[in-house]
Amino acid sequence: MMDYLKPFLFFICVHILCFASAILSDVLKTPFDYVDPMIGTNHMGHTFPGATMPFGMVQLSPDTDNPPFFLNDKYNPKVYEYCAGYQYSDETILGFSHTHFNGTGHSDLGDILIMPTVGEIQLDPGTAAEPEQGYRSRFSHNSEEAQPGYYKVKLSDYDIVAELTASRHVGFHRYTFPETNDAHIILDLDHSIYNYDGKVIWVFLRRENDTLITGYRQTKGWARTRYLYFAIEFSKPFSSYGLINQEKELYRGFWDRAVKQGENCPEIAGKKIKAYFNFDTTKDEQVKIKVAISSVSTEGALKNLHSEIPHWDFEKVREEAKSEWNRELSKIQIEASEKEKTIFYTALYHTLLNPVEYSDVDGGYRGLDQNIHNAENYTKYSIFSLWDTYRAQHPLLTILQPSRVADMIKSMLSHYDESAHKILPIWSFHSNEDWCMTGYHAIPVIADAYIKGIRGFDIEKAFKASVDSALYEKYSGLENYIKYGYVPFDLEFGQNSASKTLEYAYDDWTVANFAKAMGRNDIADQFFKRAQNYRNLYDESTKFIRAKDSKGNWLEPFDPLKTAGQGYIEGNALNYSLHIPQDIKGYTDLLGGEKNLEDMLDQIFTSETPEESYEESEDIDKRGVLGSYIHGNEPSHHIPYLYNWTGSPWKTQEIVRKIVTEMYSDETDGLPGNEDTGQMSAWYIFSALGFYPVCPGTDQYVIGAPQVKRAVINLSNGKTFEIVADGISESNKYIKSVSLNGKPLDRSYITHSEIMNGGKLTFILSDEPNKTWATQEKDHPYSMTE
Amino acid sequence: MMDYLKPFLFFICVHILCFASAILSDVLKTPFDYVDPMIGTNHMGHTFPGATMPFGMVQLSPDTDNPPFFLNDKYNPKVYEYCAGYQYSDETILGFSHTHFNGTGHSDLGDILIMPTVGEIQLDPGTAAEPEQGYRSRFSHNSEEAQPGYYKVKLSDYDIVAELTASRHVGFHRYTFPETNDAHIILDLDHSIYNYDGKVIWVFLRRENDTLITGYRQTKGWARTRYLYFAIEFSKPFSSYGLINQEKELYRGFWDRAVKQGENCPEIAGKKIKAYFNFDTTKDEQVKIKVAISSVSTEGALKNLHSEIPHWDFEKVREEAKSEWNRELSKIQIEASEKEKTIFYTALYHTLLNPVEYSDVDGGYRGLDQNIHNAENYTKYSIFSLWDTYRAQHPLLTILQPSRVADMIKSMLSHYDESAHKILPIWSFHSNEDWCMTGYHAIPVIADAYIKGIRGFDIEKAFKASVDSALYEKYSGLENYIKYGYVPFDLEFGQNSASKTLEYAYDDWTVANFAKAMGRNDIADQFFKRAQNYRNLYDESTKFIRAKDSKGNWLEPFDPLKTAGQGYIEGNALNYSLHIPQDIKGYTDLLGGEKNLEDMLDQIFTSETPEESYEESEDIDKRGVLGSYIHGNEPSHHIPYLYNWTGSPWKTQEIVRKIVTEMYSDETDGLPGNEDTGQMSAWYIFSALGFYPVCPGTDQYVIGAPQVKRAVINLSNGKTFEIVADGISESNKYIKSVSLNGKPLDRSYITHSEIMNGGKLTFILSDEPNKTWATQEKDHPYSMTE
Repeated sequence: MMDYLKPFLFFICVHILCFASAILSDVLKTPFDYVDPMIGTNHMGHTFPGATMPFGMVQLSPDTDNPPFFLNDKYNPKVYEYCAGYQYSDETILGFSHTHFNGTGHSDLGDILIMPTVGEIQLDPGTAAEPEQGYRSRFSHNSEEAQPGYYKVKLSDYDIVAELTASRHVGFHRYTFPETNDAHIILDLDHSIYNYDGKVIWVFLRRENDTLITGYRQTKGWARTRYLYFAIEFSKPFSSYGLINQEKELYRGFWDRAVKQGENCPEIAGKKIKAYFNFDTTKDEQVKIKVAISSVSTEGALKNLHSEIPHWDFEKVREEAKSEWNRELSKIQIEASEKEKTIFYTALYHTLLNPVEYSDVDGGYRGLDQNIHNAENYTKYSIFSLWDTYRAQHPLLTILQPSRVADMIKSMLSHYDESAHKILPIWSFHSNEDWCMTGYHAIPVIADAYIKGIRGFDIEKAFKASVDSALYEKYSGLENYIKYGYVPFDLEFGQNSASKTLEYAYDDWTVANFAKAMGRNDIADQFFKRAQNYRNLYDESTKFIRAKDSKGNWLEPFDPLKTAGQGYIEGNALNYSLHIPQDIKGYTDLLGGEKNLEDMLDQIFTSETPEESYEESEDIDKRGVLGSYIHGNEPSHHIPYLYNWTGSPWKTQEIVRKIVTEMYSDETDGLPGNEDTGQMSAWYIFSALGFYPVCPGTDQYVIGAPQVKRAVINLSNGKTFEIVADGISESNKYIKSVSLNGKPLDRSYITHSEIMNGGKLTFILSDEPNKTWATQEKDHPYSMTE
Repeated sequence: MMDYLKPFLFFICVHILCFASAILSDVLKTPFDYVDPMIGTNHMGHTFPGATMPFGMVQLSPDTDNPPFFLNDKYNPKVYEYCAGYQYSDETILGFSHTHFNGTGHSDLGDILIMPTVGEIQLDPGTAAEPEQGYRSRFSHNSEEAQPGYYKVKLSDYDIVAELTASRHVGFHRYTFPETNDAHIILDLDHSIYNYDGKVIWVFLRRENDTLITGYRQTKGWARTRYLYFAIEFSKPFSSYGLINQEKELYRGFWDRAVKQGENCPEIAGKKIKAYFNFDTTKDEQVKIKVAISSVSTEGALKNLHSEIPHWDFEKVREEAKSEWNRELSKIQIEASEKEKTIFYTALYHTLLNPVEYSDVDGGYRGLDQNIHNAENYTKYSIFSLWDTYRAQHPLLTILQPSRVADMIKSMLSHYDESAHKILPIWSFHSNEDWCMTGYHAIPVIADAYIKGIRGFDIEKAFKASVDSALYEKYSGLENYIKYGYVPFDLEFGQNSASKTLEYAYDDWTVANFAKAMGRNDIADQFFKRAQNYRNLYDESTKFIRAKDSKGNWLEPFDPLKTAGQGYIEGNALNYSLHIPQDIKGYTDLLGGEKNLEDMLDQIFTSETPEESYEESEDIDKRGVLGSYIHGNEPSHHIPYLYNWTGSPWKTQEIVRKIVTEMYSDETDGLPGNEDTGQMSAWYIFSALGFYPVCPGTDQYVIGAPQVKRAVINLSNGKTFEIVADGISESNKYIKSVSLNGKPLDRSYITHSEIMNGGKLTFILSDEPNKTWATQEKDHPYSMTE
């Protein structure tokens, strides 16, 4: 070789290597690598960036503030911003607590806050403005790293690098300290998300030995009676410690006299309990902590600890979390842009955080009756935000997680067994019924799963529990609903009489369909009839569903754009009137035909609703509003798909593209409203795949248009279902044609069994709407009065 | 027969019958019939008159008031009067609660108050002055009947006859109602003995069905964290009910909206929880209620309920209680006057109430670590008031209840296992260490049992636990005690430095004697040395034990009659200086010989102590004072027997007779001070039999003189030990001679094995003291420096 060629060859080689490595890194990128847990942590998404396993009970995450519920005896609106404990705009971290909600409509949790510090021992957090007044520390997002099952940040006030990972019931902390003889771990058992005086009912804390602490915390708050037991193990013995009660007990005379409290006293109990553990550390010395939790006992927590992480290998736990996340996330593989992959896999990640595995490794859990039960041959789940999740998150799980769905149903049935009311959960939160929101939406979740062929639970009991729940007259206006055929607003304290009527009617339809499938025609007839109850609130003069009193008078003044005082919750008549997923055709007929439905939908998506109207709807980001359509709240989530019951399915395709691209992003504020334990993201996943479960309880998914080039669902039965979006581009968002397994598909829905049988759904997309595809009534999705 | 004889014969027959029946009733009278649970309910005895089984966890009794702990922010001295819930002088009853202390030095319990009423539903008790303002009722002692395991009273405001009986874990109520459609059972879960705002931490209450209620109550108070679960079953379905939270919860918005609270709502939780249950009753209709309790769970309570009383036969349960009481009480049979029998068997009854069987029927119990444990093959006992009971109550149980004593030791060892401090109990109260009073007196109880041959517990562990407890430096001045050889008053918060020094020294001797018996001479030497620590506080100038500071200065000003500020608790230097039961000889030598000891004893029994001095000793009745001897408190209980270490044992005989006849009676105020969970009565039993365990941990009982004509102890090994008091009369109180199994006994003590081997101890009593009997030093009881 001639020498003068050498540099040139070198140059080429370097280029080839770079190119290969770029390809390689792209090829080697797994779904895990696309998840960005920071998405949704800014503004109203209410997600948390910390470390967790799929459906893990421990969700270990930094809390950046915990504003009190009340300020000067008035409700403090800031409390809601912190319902997941973290706000991206904050500049300080209080510490790392072990339980979080993935964006709920109410805040709570934040149990067992741990904070590593250096210097003076401080037991109070201090304020964001003056972090040096407490144990909290400044931090920079530059030092932050968040992945599924891993979180890292530098606590700059202390020069400590904090890293977190987790197994199902155990949070694993790794703190890299500077050289100091003044290193501390602070344990704040007074810290709470949704924080107020009196929230902590009782705390019990023990030093078992110089590397092990146990205890429990009993709180009220959103839950009425929540017990969390824990075991905290340190990798290195603490040299001294203090268990502190910051509140004076009325009578502990003998106690205080007999054993000196404070430094090195091994047990304490009370309401305002803090602790510190002291260490000497060399430069870069790592102190590791494992925190196991249990609803049962400290013994249960120790079992969880020893069973899940019987070692001190942080990287191993992090790797196990990574590998499990990849297994779960890989159930859908997509071809799409890097940005789309980030949005998609983060959304998928967010659908796999709630409900959580509530039972201990040995099956023990604290039941609704406050007794200890054993989940025999199943995993007991808790945190069911059913008003949100019956819509899309649970249906998504029926495709991706059928065996978990069976266990979730078993969990709801044990709730039913343990309930003093003997009904299914409304909002299940640890060992509590929170009664949050309206409806009895456990039934659509169960009926949907049953209709879709999920088995492995006691079907007869599930059916009985569903019927019992729908007939439980003490529940939320149900007595009057049964008596009047609607919930009269004058007899209702909750002022959600119209919402309730609509939701009950839909839920009743799921009972009916379940009964029909069970061959219980008597029950089916009774509930198909109740499913028509929405008609009792149809106001011919306004064409809307409108609250009515017990004498038959319509609510006045009526404003279809307003929420407050209109008998609706988190929605207005314009949007909520369409919450008749079981009978779109029936409502269409009331409106006077498909054209009128289409006009109403057009009105929703194009007219402007004054901000002061939807502000009352709570819980939404301005970005979650499209015309008068409010995506930030759940009652409207199916509305974009309703054009499929009109002559213009193409408008669904247009709107879905608009929502997907305008409302969801890969930024920290990339969610259009509260994540609501996975519902906001589940909407995205379905919509990106090209279909949506408008009416859970049917086996149908209503077609929109895919938003990714190609997707493969790897089903648990070993089959795959492939979705191809041929020609997809910024402008090509309309369906030109659809085929299923090579055969043209003219109807605007596919069925669950078509997915589960495996196959290929091919969309040809175009920049021109196909105004004839699936426009005939026979091609419309299910409607009960069809 | 001639007719005129008939009336005469009839007259004779009637007379014979009457006479026979009188003889018969006397012959048929059992120990049970002599027990009068009303004794001690008046003034300072602090006993309760209600229904219980021997050592039963349920002690179901009327509460006549529950004065608040604080009145206008100041300690309310009336609270202590009600430590057993009942004061004889009261004229109203609040209701019937299920747990009581048999006269403790602090008040608590009173769980689950039930009251039957007629008329308007009232959920607050009202006041004694205006009972009609609340649910309480007037009553008359004429309508009252109290027997072991049975209590009856007429609630005159409601014309209801209330009857109570009990099994170990279940209280059984029988209420005879008038005809009414307005009958109620009131359940007050805010009621407490030792009552204050904030005492109730949490209550959870459920209606399971129309005859079953379950729930739990979590309280602080004297206990730090006490959980009591319950199941309440009604013999008749209630027609309607209300579970009421009298406190507004800060946040229960969804709750209140979802399910109508109040009438017929089946679940409630909070702090101030009451309930009512409504019935229609016909004339004299009986509504029966069974209330089972458990420290574990409502499931545990239900197990206890179904296992112990699976029926509604009140009389059967009452009979079972009677028969079990007779079995226990018949372990000592006596010949004595009716009055003496009443005093004796009531005292014996009072020694068999505490500690209580804390574990459920299946062995489950809540441990000190707040986890649920299983008492495998033993019964877990709780409520150990050891500062009181190590003296005579536990020694009495070593004779009468050896297998229970083994279980009590096992219970203390599980306490040790579950303790964060890893020491034996000080004052064990349910799942709590109350740290009440001074000393580590679990050790004398264990050592005494071991020395007396009781087995069936883990001896090695018991020994280790004893040593660990005596070496636990964090406990109550022990670090300084070990360092200085006494507790210096300047380093002590508790101001009980002299009491502590004396009690630790005695307890140390029991460790030493235990070690010696175990062949652990190293430990024995160490603790025999510590047992001499009382010498470090012997003040040659005053001849008393006197508090000293860490520099060796005596406490000034010194007053041997005062308690407060003198380094003593519940006693003064005059009495407390003799709390050296392990080494009376050693102290005698310090005093300068037996004569000086005798003089000191004479001074105690004959000099007058000003009332304002012993008032500070707390807890005593004026009747419990003899000269300067204070029988109302425990530290002096052995003093009457100390003449046996002098040349005048006859003075013991004289003093014991004086105390027995002057301080104990068959009246409602028949106790000379607080019953202290059986110690006050155990003193009586021993003294009536003629001997007393001056120094538990030796196998010796020091002889006084019998106070009953004849007594037979039926031992669990099938043998009997008989005590005969030949010639006993009002004047014949002095020993003329003593023989054991026919052989003269010249020493002033008998041993445990002499009792357990069976035999006959015969006293010849005289009205003249025998001034030579057992006067030689060789006949004196044990002293370590002998």
